[in-house]
Amino acid sequence: MVLDIVIFGGIGDLALRKLLPSLYYLHRDGQMPGQSRILCVSRAEKPRHEFLDLVKEKLAHFLGQDFSEEVWKAFSEVLLYEKIDLAGYDDWVKLKDYLNIGPTDNRNIIYYLSVTPSLFTPICEQLKTNNLNPDCSRVVVEKPLGEDHESACQINDILAKSFSEKQIYRIDHYLGKEAVQNILHLRFSNHLMETVWNKDHIEKIEITVSETVGVEGRAGFFDRTGTLRDMVQNHLMQLLNYIALEPPKSLEADHIRDEKLKVINHLVPIDAGNIAQSSIRAQYSAGKIDDKPVMGYLDDIAEQPYKVDGKGETFVALKVFVDNERWRGVPFYLKTGKRLDRRHAEICIIFKPPETQFYDEPDSNQLIIQIQPELTVSINLLMKKLLGTGSALNKHQNQMDLHSGDTKKVRVPEAYERLLREVIKGDQTYFVRGDEILASWKWIDAIREAWQSESIEMQEYPAGSIGPSLE
Amino acid sequence: MVLDIVIFGGIGDLALRKLLPSLYYLHRDGQMPGQSRILCVSRAEKPRHEFLDLVKEKLAHFLGQDFSEEVWKAFSEVLLYEKIDLAGYDDWVKLKDYLNIGPTDNRNIIYYLSVTPSLFTPICEQLKTNNLNPDCSRVVVEKPLGEDHESACQINDILAKSFSEKQIYRIDHYLGKEAVQNILHLRFSNHLMETVWNKDHIEKIEITVSETVGVEGRAGFFDRTGTLRDMVQNHLMQLLNYIALEPPKSLEADHIRDEKLKVINHLVPIDAGNIAQSSIRAQYSAGKIDDKPVMGYLDDIAEQPYKVDGKGETFVALKVFVDNERWRGVPFYLKTGKRLDRRHAEICIIFKPPETQFYDEPDSNQLIIQIQPELTVSINLLMKKLLGTGSALNKHQNQMDLHSGDTKKVRVPEAYERLLREVIKGDQTYFVRGDEILASWKWIDAIREAWQSESIEMQEYPAGSIGPSLE
Repeated sequence: MVLDIVIFGGIGDLALRKLLPSLYYLHRDGQMPGQSRILCVSRAEKPRHEFLDLVKEKLAHFLGQDFSEEVWKAFSEVLLYEKIDLAGYDDWVKLKDYLNIGPTDNRNIIYYLSVTPSLFTPICEQLKTNNLNPDCSRVVVEKPLGEDHESACQINDILAKSFSEKQIYRIDHYLGKEAVQNILHLRFSNHLMETVWNKDHIEKIEITVSETVGVEGRAGFFDRTGTLRDMVQNHLMQLLNYIALEPPKSLEADHIRDEKLKVINHLVPIDAGNIAQSSIRAQYSAGKIDDKPVMGYLDDIAEQPYKVDGKGETFVALKVFVDNERWRGVPFYLKTGKRLDRRHAEICIIFKPPETQFYDEPDSNQLIIQIQPELTVSINLLMKKLLGTGSALNKHQNQMDLHSGDTKKVRVPEAYERLLREVIKGDQTYFVRGDEILASWKWIDAIREAWQSESIEMQEYPAGSIGPSLE
Repeated sequence: MVLDIVIFGGIGDLALRKLLPSLYYLHRDGQMPGQSRILCVSRAEKPRHEFLDLVKEKLAHFLGQDFSEEVWKAFSEVLLYEKIDLAGYDDWVKLKDYLNIGPTDNRNIIYYLSVTPSLFTPICEQLKTNNLNPDCSRVVVEKPLGEDHESACQINDILAKSFSEKQIYRIDHYLGKEAVQNILHLRFSNHLMETVWNKDHIEKIEITVSETVGVEGRAGFFDRTGTLRDMVQNHLMQLLNYIALEPPKSLEADHIRDEKLKVINHLVPIDAGNIAQSSIRAQYSAGKIDDKPVMGYLDDIAEQPYKVDGKGETFVALKVFVDNERWRGVPFYLKTGKRLDRRHAEICIIFKPPETQFYDEPDSNQLIIQIQPELTVSINLLMKKLLGTGSALNKHQNQMDLHSGDTKKVRVPEAYERLLREVIKGDQTYFVRGDEILASWKWIDAIREAWQSESIEMQEYPAGSIGPSLE
């Protein structure tokens, strides 16, 4: 097997911080075919030795003690850099010569478009014009994949003109997380879970992704985009999909992706009619994070060199219903925001109280799937209070670490490494299909429109708090 | 409240080893009313100081570092010893004077019959004759409560002539165990358990009580009795009852005991028709326990001074069905024996495999209630193999210690202490009702008859093994 990876934006932040470190590990751990080459391209001129120095410095920094001279030596041999002027005829000919696509059996080419979406068009067109898009080639793109339904359609169309859907890998890095990949197995390999995974047994579901960071250097992008589009449309909806989907026909990529699409299509729209009771949008005000005072959002963006209008929400809470047999009437609470009390992501399934009427204040069982910072699954059970009499109960929480089933402590790869491995294998399970992305934008667009049409107030929450609550 | 505890067999093994240590703790921990007296009686003459020396020596031995001179001093003040000749008129008058039963409000008398059942008749008759059985008195008895249905009837009748059922406390010390008392709470305070507690979700249930000891000094009694009557009729059937019962109307003693009786009445009889496939009886042969060689059962009893015929089984396995809506078709495997590989008691609920067909070798969830040596409840869940792909799964076991919900590590009282506390409180929940004991003997008698009528072979198992299996 011959593998060529071409990274557009090859010396950009993502490439240096995530992609090349991931490829370093994959190369070191024998997860790449023997005949592999990695070509980083961008518009800057850069001699190979300068490029290698830059990558080496970044790898040493980001990999810490996992960086080794010996591994680097082997890895650097597969690394190449080329300047490509997207409009320049000669540069594409050079790329064509380099790739030298002949018979495509046993050949695998991956284009990673680590560039702004406005460059998708020239790159895809050139790849097609130069016949660099054979069936054995794959193209990887990631968010933002549009900012609404219309722009997402355009991106889909651009990609579709040069690649078939089977060649397109849309990354949502949440799908590369172990804890997310575990959800379907937890649901379907455990009778105890499978049995209770519906409205008869579940009272409500809370999906929370909270961050402590503020907008950092991204104020321009962020203020225009807002948390609904930056976080909910992709990460939180992915979590919702995995929790809610019906058993797929098999664990094959398209069977799973068919069911994810169905979930989105069964979401009750949040629109002018229910927006007030179904959503909160808010911005953080001044507060404290880790006991250190931090500014509010509007002050944060006022410090930016370019002017932004301060209308982006930094927090969203939604009360969502899935209108099908399994979920009718069960609220899914989605909540995400910046400058919250702690950095964590988890899904909490809250079961109904017991039916038997023995207890004055019946408590509920909960299943908590923690996605970050730890990878754990825990269940609460109620048990007799030790030495207690009558119906005095204690809540016992037991936490299973996803590591614990393994014989030795292993390094948990970052999402990008997991996902790159899947691209190399050609498995689309953990990538977002074009129709899914359009459906999710459609649902998200309705919320934004309703916020406008109903003049839904932008609430405030102090930095470091848990944010406003819908319940 | 005035409390008098009268222990017949007051310097016997059980009294010195279990009852007085338990009362020591109850007294120390303020669980006995201020005006309490403990009177130990037996047929031997013994001056009070000799009695106190004996008790003190035994307490110091059995309590270890929990023994304190200061506590002993206070405790010994409530201790008295009297010789009673059961047939002697004067001795009973003396007891009558001592108890001095006048108005019975706020008064509580407990007779603990720690004697061989053949003495129940004279004691109960004398208590009645001397009007020592007012409503405020309670009588405590324990196994063996008969050796078959007929003899159990006789014991019930003897007790009933002097005491009403509400005054009678039949001890099965398994009911004093925290882990057993937790079963109903685990079942009924957790929606996740309540929901799956039936034949639709449970594949089978294994109830195991294994011992490493042999017959020790009890060969005479044991060989005549056998494990079926010594262990199954009481301890294992109690565990079965708690696992299988329907939700009682409330957690009151008689509502629970009504439901336990119904379970026994719904047990499918094991008789001549199904004895061969539903039971194993066996005796241990020579083997090793903890790497030390031990003799077989027949050699063990041959060493006894009196001759026994070696027909007692030291191991029983039964496959039991409860014929009601909840349990029809679910096998309960009961297994208990001496000289097995380890000392432990546990209930294992094995759930059905998942319905979804994604896994080549679907594994099952299990709920394990460990009764001894540890008090734990654990559930296995299957989860994604870390870093694995496709459907590679790990089985994650998570164990909840019954202690863990409490803020500090507490002493777990022995079953006798728990039960004596309940007798003092007058709560019959964890005591066996007369009708229940008769029903269980009837079911057990049928098995013994079928072993005889069908000439079911006595199997052998090496000491230190797990014993023969019915599956």
